[in-house]
Amino acid sequence: MKQENFAMLCDFYEFTMSNGYFKNGFYEKNVWFDVFFRKVPDDGGFAIAAGLEQVIDYIRELHFKDEDIEYLRKKGIFDEGFLKYLKNFKFSGDIYAVPEGTPVFPNEPIMTIKAPAIEAQLIETFVLLSINHQTLIATKANRIVRAAQGRAVLEFGSRRAQGASGAVLGARAAYIGGCAGTACTLTDELYGVPAGGTMAHSWIQMFDSEYDAFKAYCELYPDNPTLLVDTYNTLKSGVPNAIKVFKEVLLPQGKTKCAIRLDSGDISYLSKKARKMLDDAGLTECTITASNALDENLIRDLMMQGAQVDTFGVGERLITSAKSPVFGGVYKLVAVENESGEIVPKIKVSENTAKITNPHFKKLYRYYDRESGKALADEICVYDETVDDSKPHTIFDPNATWKTKTLTDFTARELLVPIFENGELVYDCPSIGEIAAYCREQLDLLWDEVKRFENPHTYYVDLSEKLYEIKNILLSVANASL
Amino acid sequence: MKQENFAMLCDFYEFTMSNGYFKNGFYEKNVWFDVFFRKVPDDGGFAIAAGLEQVIDYIRELHFKDEDIEYLRKKGIFDEGFLKYLKNFKFSGDIYAVPEGTPVFPNEPIMTIKAPAIEAQLIETFVLLSINHQTLIATKANRIVRAAQGRAVLEFGSRRAQGASGAVLGARAAYIGGCAGTACTLTDELYGVPAGGTMAHSWIQMFDSEYDAFKAYCELYPDNPTLLVDTYNTLKSGVPNAIKVFKEVLLPQGKTKCAIRLDSGDISYLSKKARKMLDDAGLTECTITASNALDENLIRDLMMQGAQVDTFGVGERLITSAKSPVFGGVYKLVAVENESGEIVPKIKVSENTAKITNPHFKKLYRYYDRESGKALADEICVYDETVDDSKPHTIFDPNATWKTKTLTDFTARELLVPIFENGELVYDCPSIGEIAAYCREQLDLLWDEVKRFENPHTYYVDLSEKLYEIKNILLSVANASL
Repeated sequence: MKQENFAMLCDFYEFTMSNGYFKNGFYEKNVWFDVFFRKVPDDGGFAIAAGLEQVIDYIRELHFKDEDIEYLRKKGIFDEGFLKYLKNFKFSGDIYAVPEGTPVFPNEPIMTIKAPAIEAQLIETFVLLSINHQTLIATKANRIVRAAQGRAVLEFGSRRAQGASGAVLGARAAYIGGCAGTACTLTDELYGVPAGGTMAHSWIQMFDSEYDAFKAYCELYPDNPTLLVDTYNTLKSGVPNAIKVFKEVLLPQGKTKCAIRLDSGDISYLSKKARKMLDDAGLTECTITASNALDENLIRDLMMQGAQVDTFGVGERLITSAKSPVFGGVYKLVAVENESGEIVPKIKVSENTAKITNPHFKKLYRYYDRESGKALADEICVYDETVDDSKPHTIFDPNATWKTKTLTDFTARELLVPIFENGELVYDCPSIGEIAAYCREQLDLLWDEVKRFENPHTYYVDLSEKLYEIKNILLSVANASL
Repeated sequence: MKQENFAMLCDFYEFTMSNGYFKNGFYEKNVWFDVFFRKVPDDGGFAIAAGLEQVIDYIRELHFKDEDIEYLRKKGIFDEGFLKYLKNFKFSGDIYAVPEGTPVFPNEPIMTIKAPAIEAQLIETFVLLSINHQTLIATKANRIVRAAQGRAVLEFGSRRAQGASGAVLGARAAYIGGCAGTACTLTDELYGVPAGGTMAHSWIQMFDSEYDAFKAYCELYPDNPTLLVDTYNTLKSGVPNAIKVFKEVLLPQGKTKCAIRLDSGDISYLSKKARKMLDDAGLTECTITASNALDENLIRDLMMQGAQVDTFGVGERLITSAKSPVFGGVYKLVAVENESGEIVPKIKVSENTAKITNPHFKKLYRYYDRESGKALADEICVYDETVDDSKPHTIFDPNATWKTKTLTDFTARELLVPIFENGELVYDCPSIGEIAAYCREQLDLLWDEVKRFENPHTYYVDLSEKLYEIKNILLSVANASL
């Protein structure tokens, strides 16, 4: 999965357009595309960027095999010159992106591609797919992790994922978003996300009794075993048998770490009853894991009700982001190079004003308050602007231009960093642990108000004065030409 | 993607349990697992089974590589004998399944696996993932296709899919469910689902004017080109430019087939206005494609309002089944072989009665009315029962045993067919076109009442008297032992 060439995972119109660019002599013309999104899933206040590493793998592997060319040739609509061009295809452009784990906001560029028209066009589908998928799951995972208030959240959803990469890379994204581990073995093997898991109901059913099943398990895995206690009856059978086996098998070995897992029934009620039974038996170090159709809303409720859960196993609602299963990242042309080598900004007008794009090759700054360290606002600038954070800097809301704010004691950080330059990878991919740690750090720099589940405070994403003016001029021109 | 070995796409507990089966001498013990589901997504009346071909590919490729074994060894909890067993692992069991494209109902087995315990356990995650994902999308696609009442529905969602296989195999499943094609090139290349597509907004923006962009496109692709008309203003610019170019470029070549695509704004209003403009210009053969956040509800509304749309392009809400993005298929142990080689039925009790499983190795019959051809009911029987459809046959509702019905003029069809026998593939995979055609045929045999979007009639899935009795005995025994 890590090595696969996904060149053909591409909307067919990318090929018809690229063939047209080829025929119209556009293939050497540099263009700039931005990846951005308009709305945070679940009406949240921010998203967590993820999926960049898979874009990097994709770009590095990208080539068309003979059978791909043959497949296209049989369509009977592609120019032989174009097919020959594809045979030697290699990405030669520049890519800038925000590092994985960065909290990001609507309408700001989270990736910018500069490349000859055909190259930029042919990578659109996969780039969007990768960023959209993993950003969706990292964002959802973080909501669930926030609801659990420090209790560990484990990703358990492979079997309900939307396909193999949904499972494997979904678990990767969930770890970036704050999950402590996954049930998916392949995600551990390929990406180093710690995998774990103990038993299903079938283990219990395979033995003559629940007691026998528990005993065999603890004898085999005496280091912190988790026993699933709901196969027959949680409180009448599962918990008493677990207590008996822990006492008989673990305690004589001097082992006190163990756990039970609740997978059905009312988690709040059962966890409190089970906690009391375990404590009364002296098994105060035995922890309780709960699973069964959990998400941030249910976990928040359980926490409020004092459920005695130490670890949450979250499946289908995390791995599919069930309440909001689409991340709507788009890929829009923002500039083209003219014959003189100048960058000509482009805009996409729409009857829906929210769908009007921010034109031009851009930079993205995040400003932090020097005292509290907290993020104050983001500002989108033209590529050749530079913000000097040693001087006061005034920003304004592009949707309400009279709202201005002058930043004084602040630091400025550029969020879009170079990933590829002239087709060469110039970025050192951090490990998955580093990404997750960076994500935690960056989240600590957001105000709590932005992290509220419902009706979060809208974080400011402003346009520089220069960019704002360019946008308005392009809009006037587009309108006048109708 | 077709050839990949997904042996490690497996929940970690499958390995811990399998290691335990190995240590406890269960690895040669045959067990039976059923795949079934409890609820149709979107509260629909039926699902469409899909994903079998990928299970077949998976089983045939299934093996553990040296690096997989090494990865497991490093966990420090697996027996060397077990690791050696994995090195030589090959699936040697039997699999029965309903053919892809079959309408299926809650609580009936759609796949049954008979295999030595470890083998049956290790394939659980991938089998469920494949069936759950594709059944979800085929089922959703069919809802959308039904709403379109004969207008073509195209799958356009790759960029918003949950990962690469979500896109590629989602498009495959959508075709099984009735879509006419996809935008995903790789699904065409690998599975033969017809891919198509014409242009994005970037094509228009790449040229100096919309007119130039349309002209270049029609000159290049004069056979039935589709022009995207909403880049600047649909009715003031896009449609007039399209008409001008169609007349200038296509008509002189004697070509009259062409299309426009609406991708924003109010589809109902714009399609009617555009239809009139096209007809007034004599372009009566020009068709209208609409896209933009469509699903079955919006399409049903558009059809009701007389929208002039010939083709619907459906993206994110289809490829993620957005309103109901989880198909909850489960994998439950239903029988084990004892030392005498007898099949011992097993049941999973639950505090939630809906979660109690149907025990035993089973058969699934579908009964059709001989006169109308329509499907009357399904009946789940014990593996050694045979229904003779030349004689009257009485069935009853297991949830309301007084409700009986005697079938007389009927035909009986066994739905679970052999796929693997002793690890050998014995099933001839139909082509994707055959699967889609079979699905259409089978759907014609369902009453319309079962196909209603909301509150559909509940199709009967009954238990044979023998199975019903076995289930009740097992429930009594389980209850008495508490």
